[in-house]
Amino acid sequence: MADGASVEQAIASPRIAIESVAPAIDGGRHAVKALIGRPVTVSAVFICDGHGKLGAEVRWRPRAGDPWRSVPMTLIGNDRWEAELVAEHIGIVPFRIQAWVDEWATYTDELEKKHRAGVTVELELQEGQQLIQRTLDQAAAEHIDMLQELLVALAEPAGTDERVALMLSPHTAEIMALAAERPHLCRSDQHLLDVERKLAEFASWYELFPRSMSGDAERHGTFDDVIGRLPDIARMGFDVLYFPPIHPIGLTHRKGPNNSLQAGPDDPGSPYAIGSEEGGHDAVHPLLGSLDDFRRLVSEAREHRLEIALDFAIQCSPDHPWLREHPGWFNWRPDGSIRYAENPPKKYEDIVNVDFYAEQAMPDLWLALRDVVLFWVEQGVTLFRVDNPHTKPLPFWEWLIAEVRHQHPQVIFLSEAFTRPAMMARLGKIGFSQSYTYFTWRNTKQELQEYFTELNQSPWRECYRPNFFVNTPDINPRFLHNSGRAGFLIRAALATMGSGLWGMYSGFELCESAPLPGKEEYLDSEKYQLRPRNWHAPGNIVAEIARLNRIRRENPALQTHLGFQAYNVWNDNILYFGKRTEDLSSFILVAVSLDPFNAQQAHFELPLWEFGLNDDAVTQGEDLMNGHTWLWHGKTQWMRIEPWHLPFGIWRIRPVT
Amino acid sequence: MADGASVEQAIASPRIAIESVAPAIDGGRHAVKALIGRPVTVSAVFICDGHGKLGAEVRWRPRAGDPWRSVPMTLIGNDRWEAELVAEHIGIVPFRIQAWVDEWATYTDELEKKHRAGVTVELELQEGQQLIQRTLDQAAAEHIDMLQELLVALAEPAGTDERVALMLSPHTAEIMALAAERPHLCRSDQHLLDVERKLAEFASWYELFPRSMSGDAERHGTFDDVIGRLPDIARMGFDVLYFPPIHPIGLTHRKGPNNSLQAGPDDPGSPYAIGSEEGGHDAVHPLLGSLDDFRRLVSEAREHRLEIALDFAIQCSPDHPWLREHPGWFNWRPDGSIRYAENPPKKYEDIVNVDFYAEQAMPDLWLALRDVVLFWVEQGVTLFRVDNPHTKPLPFWEWLIAEVRHQHPQVIFLSEAFTRPAMMARLGKIGFSQSYTYFTWRNTKQELQEYFTELNQSPWRECYRPNFFVNTPDINPRFLHNSGRAGFLIRAALATMGSGLWGMYSGFELCESAPLPGKEEYLDSEKYQLRPRNWHAPGNIVAEIARLNRIRRENPALQTHLGFQAYNVWNDNILYFGKRTEDLSSFILVAVSLDPFNAQQAHFELPLWEFGLNDDAVTQGEDLMNGHTWLWHGKTQWMRIEPWHLPFGIWRIRPVT
Repeated sequence: MADGASVEQAIASPRIAIESVAPAIDGGRHAVKALIGRPVTVSAVFICDGHGKLGAEVRWRPRAGDPWRSVPMTLIGNDRWEAELVAEHIGIVPFRIQAWVDEWATYTDELEKKHRAGVTVELELQEGQQLIQRTLDQAAAEHIDMLQELLVALAEPAGTDERVALMLSPHTAEIMALAAERPHLCRSDQHLLDVERKLAEFASWYELFPRSMSGDAERHGTFDDVIGRLPDIARMGFDVLYFPPIHPIGLTHRKGPNNSLQAGPDDPGSPYAIGSEEGGHDAVHPLLGSLDDFRRLVSEAREHRLEIALDFAIQCSPDHPWLREHPGWFNWRPDGSIRYAENPPKKYEDIVNVDFYAEQAMPDLWLALRDVVLFWVEQGVTLFRVDNPHTKPLPFWEWLIAEVRHQHPQVIFLSEAFTRPAMMARLGKIGFSQSYTYFTWRNTKQELQEYFTELNQSPWRECYRPNFFVNTPDINPRFLHNSGRAGFLIRAALATMGSGLWGMYSGFELCESAPLPGKEEYLDSEKYQLRPRNWHAPGNIVAEIARLNRIRRENPALQTHLGFQAYNVWNDNILYFGKRTEDLSSFILVAVSLDPFNAQQAHFELPLWEFGLNDDAVTQGEDLMNGHTWLWHGKTQWMRIEPWHLPFGIWRIRPVT
Repeated sequence: MADGASVEQAIASPRIAIESVAPAIDGGRHAVKALIGRPVTVSAVFICDGHGKLGAEVRWRPRAGDPWRSVPMTLIGNDRWEAELVAEHIGIVPFRIQAWVDEWATYTDELEKKHRAGVTVELELQEGQQLIQRTLDQAAAEHIDMLQELLVALAEPAGTDERVALMLSPHTAEIMALAAERPHLCRSDQHLLDVERKLAEFASWYELFPRSMSGDAERHGTFDDVIGRLPDIARMGFDVLYFPPIHPIGLTHRKGPNNSLQAGPDDPGSPYAIGSEEGGHDAVHPLLGSLDDFRRLVSEAREHRLEIALDFAIQCSPDHPWLREHPGWFNWRPDGSIRYAENPPKKYEDIVNVDFYAEQAMPDLWLALRDVVLFWVEQGVTLFRVDNPHTKPLPFWEWLIAEVRHQHPQVIFLSEAFTRPAMMARLGKIGFSQSYTYFTWRNTKQELQEYFTELNQSPWRECYRPNFFVNTPDINPRFLHNSGRAGFLIRAALATMGSGLWGMYSGFELCESAPLPGKEEYLDSEKYQLRPRNWHAPGNIVAEIARLNRIRRENPALQTHLGFQAYNVWNDNILYFGKRTEDLSSFILVAVSLDPFNAQQAHFELPLWEFGLNDDAVTQGEDLMNGHTWLWHGKTQWMRIEPWHLPFGIWRIRPVT
């Protein structure tokens, strides 16, 4: 009102102030991430003059077209009120909060206090009758009878106690709650929840290059070869099978092995150099098979409880049909060339970018890209891993994701952005369900503990679901170069226990780690050549990965990154934390030694206080890697971790009743 | 865009996202407190796709009607940009933040890198020329010549180095900054600063009941008696002289001594029972003098550098003229009475409240109350201490304060709300310049440290200026009941050093503390009877208060509650902290023993790191209570505080250069 409202405006403006509506992102500008079936606690602070009682409720609409529902809010202290919603359908769920002065509650509260204190309440009883009469005068037709009956009952000759009892009765309260006006009703702005299916927060991703699946370096793999791999991948407990681009690959400036600028005649090129004479983003590389083959793969995968994720990489080989058909979508230089793509310090000489704001690209390019996504959804793809979304306009993503999810609410977008925190969060705010993270570069106890904690706090918890990839074709983590098998187990345990979402690029289970010298990249990267593998090579960690994924499926606390809490262990080489559901029915303790070479041991604390137990309480422990159970006596315990056996422990803790 | 924007809307929506604009309250819904002449750092996060350079600025208007000014923002890291404003006028100052894609900066940055790396840049030079040509094509008339000259210079035959140098020259940058379009310009919402004069944040309030100033329990004091007290009050270093209500007092249900329900014929009654046959809120109690006398007092006070604060208590004695003239402003009960006021657990049987939302009160009552304030402003009153604002509607205050300050920007409102935190903060957000606090009930080291720290943090620092009253006619703090003189010095030091705003109700300087048995109230409270005093009574702390106020005037770090930082002292009975200006030119250390009975001693740390000094650095200390100076060697020092001498130390620290 700093700009000078008139007194009429002031009188008409809300008497009750609403503040701190939660959950919310940036004051309600974006939809807050939510899941089907998981309760959301909605809260707000109401500030009103005086000592009168307020009433408050959340109004929400479970599904577009449904009627709005009301959930009463309760005061939890210091002017904060809350209520719980449980969304039952995927989609954008709007909610508002409203509060009003509850005259009847104010009146009955005072009446009760005075009557109990022995004060004469004749005047108060008259006031109550007036209040009911006033309600009757303005009542809707369906409430008139009830109110009239109430007034008749009050008018009957009776003692004070009886009349007070009638005023204070739950039945009267019910009538008045239905019929009474809600003076000074004020409403919050509309807030949104983005309700998704569980796979948005709990999924294990497995990444592979279909062309490497023939098992033979001389033969280009096919979708049928991938079908042959499905049983193994499913047995390891993965839910999502993700492929880098499967489209035709350009010849111009094709890359050779190890990102060399000259490709030999048989080099397959980078699948990220999308498009050739054989087609662009909606075509399949002929050597992989046909579109029919792809659809068959999708449906076979589904039999194995695997959904297919495709890479969505918005870029073109110079041979992409779009350069010819839509030259206006690109930014041409004075010499008739197009600048090749860069993501400093990386250079992509075999790729050019589109220009979203070129005159002829608006809106044709935007629509074409949306249609690419819709095309693949129609082929059965339900997840998209989006390549470098931070180099494309934010409004483009916000629009595209809303469009696709409006038609296909089950679709999930994973953001592959490695950049500054504000952009990482923003991509989540505008609609990406999941995101790549800094996990790969968090190695020490302090780094991991801080990062996991931060992801549990606002603003991250409302907008960002971390997908902990332990490796990718682009990231061969330095920690793994010399850590041996124990190092792979350490990172697998951190990823699988740290978040409901984790991902693995094939080769990890074989402990592959040979780097390009001095770099965080793989030697003989699969991005530029076929890489057949022996899936049963000795020293593999296939069994451990299968076990970790099974533990995740069996324990709800591990199906999200939320519910993390670091606990005390007196050793800086051991990260020790709990993951738990809100009701504590699933409570898992995880200890990971970050040292792949030496045994580590330490005293540690069981979080007995979380269960309301004393320091000497007895709890049951169960080792989820081998099924052993035991009793823990008291709070302080001791552990020893030998990396040559297993560099971590995962224990379910339960109070002994 | 969750509600499904069209592609056209998506294309038109801002490419650059703006987040976290600061300073801001609740995302910009309220004006942030600011002072004339004190720099405000404005910052925001800009998020844009890709790797191009951005430009950004703050647009602000120093005074209504002035042209808008621009201040360039600079990138300080992780997408956060900032700039500094200094407001020069009292009033509401709007600002916005805007950012755009800076094509020229992006271009020159790349040109420079490539040229330095020895890459051929002929194509880049052509692109630069195109960019200038494109700018020329769209340029405003006044920029055409400059751009044409630039193109001519570039067309002259010259070597690559020379042409690159011309592109990169500051002169070219200047031309392009002036003339070039700002593609993808996006703007934040409008934010507001509420710029006030310094007295809003730095003032020492002295409260007295004029009627007690005769020095004679038998004679009602007058404004002239108050004039006689002015030299003493000014010598103690106060800036504001505050009176409880000075209006006629009702007879009906008048209170007697110690809040008794029966007044004797000579009892003066509570000044909060405003209104009698002799007038209401715009009248002066006849025994105090006339309105002319009051104006004379205001002008005499001004001679002593004292401004007058009046109590604004919106309530009426049953004898107030408004009950007769405007019965529709009150809420009448069925028996023709009006409910008396309560502020649970306190009862005010001699007072009734108006009803802001009674039909006939809208807007007449609101306007009448505003006019009361304006009336007293016209008599020379520049500050209002508002009684219990939290029991009157928030929109009323927001409107009233804006109205009054629109006409009289110098006016300052102090909120006397003792209630839950959300309301305390909200009153600051909607316009109160200052507020009473929980200070009186913060006694232990931990309580004080946490409270002072909290007031330095968001959201409090943007909306709430704490006025630390050491006592009030309503609050006789328990700590002082038995603490003796040392206790009064402890609380005076905490208040004067803790905030730029502090207040004292007369009697404190005489260490008065006799309570109503078991209560936090004064025995023989001045609210119900005359209380003449001997201002020179032995044991008074007048000299110490004068010294404390002088130290405040001489040291800018003490003229605000901001710049507080607790430091280490190894004794839980000693609160030890620093107050400092942002440039560190004023840096004060304060140690207060919270034990009024025993000597306390401890090692403590000088905050050498704040000056960038090593732990063994030498600093100069000066005891501001007695002017002694010395050198401190190193970080760890020792102190001993004897409450029978002085229970606190105040030291100015300066690096020795």
